[in-house]
Amino acid sequence: MSPLTDLLTAARAAADTPAAADAATAATARQSELAKPPGSLGALEALGIRLAAIAGECPPPVPGRPALLVAAGDHGVHAQGVTAWPQAITTAMVSAVAGGVAAASVIAEVVGAEVTVLDVGVAADGPAPAGVRRDRAVAAGTKDLLIGPAMTVEEVTAGILAGAAAARAALDGGADLLVLGDLGIANTTASACLVAALTGTGATEVTGAGAANPPEVVARKQEVIAGALQRHEHDRATAPADGDVAEGLRVLASLGGAEHAALVGVVLAAAGARVPVLLDGVISGAAALAAVALEPSVAEVLVAGHRSAEPAATIALASLGLDPLVDLGLRLGEGTGALLAVPLVQSAAATLGRMARIADLEV
Amino acid sequence: MSPLTDLLTAARAAADTPAAADAATAATARQSELAKPPGSLGALEALGIRLAAIAGECPPPVPGRPALLVAAGDHGVHAQGVTAWPQAITTAMVSAVAGGVAAASVIAEVVGAEVTVLDVGVAADGPAPAGVRRDRAVAAGTKDLLIGPAMTVEEVTAGILAGAAAARAALDGGADLLVLGDLGIANTTASACLVAALTGTGATEVTGAGAANPPEVVARKQEVIAGALQRHEHDRATAPADGDVAEGLRVLASLGGAEHAALVGVVLAAAGARVPVLLDGVISGAAALAAVALEPSVAEVLVAGHRSAEPAATIALASLGLDPLVDLGLRLGEGTGALLAVPLVQSAAATLGRMARIADLEV
Repeated sequence: MSPLTDLLTAARAAADTPAAADAATAATARQSELAKPPGSLGALEALGIRLAAIAGECPPPVPGRPALLVAAGDHGVHAQGVTAWPQAITTAMVSAVAGGVAAASVIAEVVGAEVTVLDVGVAADGPAPAGVRRDRAVAAGTKDLLIGPAMTVEEVTAGILAGAAAARAALDGGADLLVLGDLGIANTTASACLVAALTGTGATEVTGAGAANPPEVVARKQEVIAGALQRHEHDRATAPADGDVAEGLRVLASLGGAEHAALVGVVLAAAGARVPVLLDGVISGAAALAAVALEPSVAEVLVAGHRSAEPAATIALASLGLDPLVDLGLRLGEGTGALLAVPLVQSAAATLGRMARIADLEV
Repeated sequence: MSPLTDLLTAARAAADTPAAADAATAATARQSELAKPPGSLGALEALGIRLAAIAGECPPPVPGRPALLVAAGDHGVHAQGVTAWPQAITTAMVSAVAGGVAAASVIAEVVGAEVTVLDVGVAADGPAPAGVRRDRAVAAGTKDLLIGPAMTVEEVTAGILAGAAAARAALDGGADLLVLGDLGIANTTASACLVAALTGTGATEVTGAGAANPPEVVARKQEVIAGALQRHEHDRATAPADGDVAEGLRVLASLGGAEHAALVGVVLAAAGARVPVLLDGVISGAAALAAVALEPSVAEVLVAGHRSAEPAATIALASLGLDPLVDLGLRLGEGTGALLAVPLVQSAAATLGRMARIADLEV
């Protein structure tokens, strides 16, 4: 079997056990026995049950070693004027996140998350900055997705394996909660295309302002997304009917970025290890949709960290059937919104596991 | 001057400096210089500016020593059948919170908050459980607020001073963020009455299900709240026109609980020290309204932790002009919702203080 097939098989095998359902049943019963009015912990109660199902045990472990994986890549579609920001910002932000001075690094410190920056396709020469894991699936950014496929299927596969390898390194180091992050100027354009293609939504609905772009840039972005979706549909009409995995890889190749592929790999590896994955905004939402397209059972390990201001993020979460934990209007990416949800995940597991039961109270 | 006057004077004096406005101006400028698209940290950006104003410095300190103060008391109105829970639950939960096995204690551990339980009027004999600070303003719970005032003005004053003393002990111990919590069976009834009286809202709007009470109990609760508000208005008609402070104390005495008085004291002490206060649900929302009635400038140090499912909590926040940070349907009290917001407050301060500026990036 190929390494990708191994990854998919492992994810499916980990999902296909009775432990998840048993743990969820036990957790549901336990929630009703704890020293609180029924339902009074709100969304934390369902989250606790979900964490029990993921771990296959009740109470679930309290994640104590969250790890942020920030996948970084550049995008050929930048040439189409879909953003007001220069492409060099990607490289600068890779250094900033790795150097501890970006928003995600600062919030990671607050919530106690280790940070890995994974360069899977940044368009920069020279050695990788200190603290950056470089495992490039594409050499200098993707091709322009308006004109043709952004990547080859081989590049997508390499990106998935790079993400899975980074996730496995984090898991081997003790990480028990994986947090998705991203860097890449123009990557909300690719994400919007992926969400549109994977949910059957139109260009108008999926287009957002990205990194605070002015209206004329957003209008151009919407044109490009509409054109890319048209080009993608045209290519798809002649594609062979060769199964969900091949089709999922082709969608990623056609419209995605190397960082999407890498985040798909993180999700697949986490699913194989039954470790929860916290989604950030529109980039990780698009990657999660792609991962589910490749292997539907991986949806079980996904937790929505926050609701990004990007409209395609909300469309992705709705399609995944997930409610976000934090809703504070963030639209920065890097994993910032997902990181803010880490203590909420920890609290959901901790209350389920450590609270007294009503029967234990001295009334 | 009386100790209460001292407290009010200190709060007003701390507010009346140009440092807050200067720090807010500096923080607003700094937010626009940081390495992120403008506004992309959403509500964290305004919160960071607010924290700078509270501290009177930019960037604001990152709170590293949050302290949860759980004020506990019992309520004479329990006799009216406003809740399905026995009054003895208050005592049991005082032990559970102090013993580390209540929801608030578990979440406090997750977010690194120290916990103080302050018994200002629990209806229990015997010695205080280990870890409980007992400083009772009323001996065995308040009187029935449907029939007459729940407390005397002297009892209210004692409760305020008890809360202020507990807050000062926490601040002297290094606390830099005070988190409000409460325990007290029937205290959503008293809170709804306070919110109604202090915002001019009707009984129908302020009545909620409290601790998951069945509809017939909620209907009875609404009757009692309507009756109490009528009784309060009647008493008020003959009260002297002797100023906001005297009137604020009378509202607390008429409709509140000892834990409301104590939380007012915490807010006043925090305002005097210019330390931010995280509000929890309807009990702390009611107390915050009462504190603002006594001394309007204390509103400057308030941060809304979460949106409780109790309708009066939302009415209180709207009246205070505050948007909550967490909105997950919690309705447990104890400080649980406010505790979940602690990492958000820390992240707001940390991003403002520790992120690189755009000018610092190597582009």
